[in-house]
Amino acid sequence: MPFTHVVTFRWVPEKHDVADEVRRSLEELVRSLPGVHSYLCGSDAGLNPGNSDFAVVGTFASKEDFLHYRDHPEHQRILEELIVPNLADKEVVQIER
Amino acid sequence: MPFTHVVTFRWVPEKHDVADEVRRSLEELVRSLPGVHSYLCGSDAGLNPGNSDFAVVGTFASKEDFLHYRDHPEHQRILEELIVPNLADKEVVQIER
Repeated sequence: MPFTHVVTFRWVPEKHDVADEVRRSLEELVRSLPGVHSYLCGSDAGLNPGNSDFAVVGTFASKEDFLHYRDHPEHQRILEELIVPNLADKEVVQIER
Repeated sequence: MPFTHVVTFRWVPEKHDVADEVRRSLEELVRSLPGVHSYLCGSDAGLNPGNSDFAVVGTFASKEDFLHYRDHPEHQRILEELIVPNLADKEVVQIER
């Protein structure tokens, strides 16, 4: 069953410049992984002032394919080196349908 | 240019039962609208205890198609009658790519 991982990030105020590197690194990672139906990540378009800063939406063929992505060493590196040090808030929802 | 609207909701603690009606109402609405490339909404799968409760991910052919959805009377009714009265927190990110 398809498994969709949805994440929104707020960066700490002066750290918006990390967004492009996060996007490129995540996109490069998923190109090498099996079972990725679709994957979109990027910065908010600025339509609403109160929006969060960045989102990731990945749909995987199965929960197992998602877990393989989540636990992949490169994904952990991106989290630890690029995302977590610059993160003010994160919200996650995962839909299995 | 495709426009993706990403929303995460946290419901007020005792109001989780509104989720199915929200999902059915939103899905019915988008079936009638032009320019909807893809649309997924639903409750969190429960993989991580700290996750939010519900997400909406809609990809529209253009920002204008998204605005048509956003401002549609039925979408406003769903927001005002079903979502807002039961909402503890909401995060939104919109990606135009």
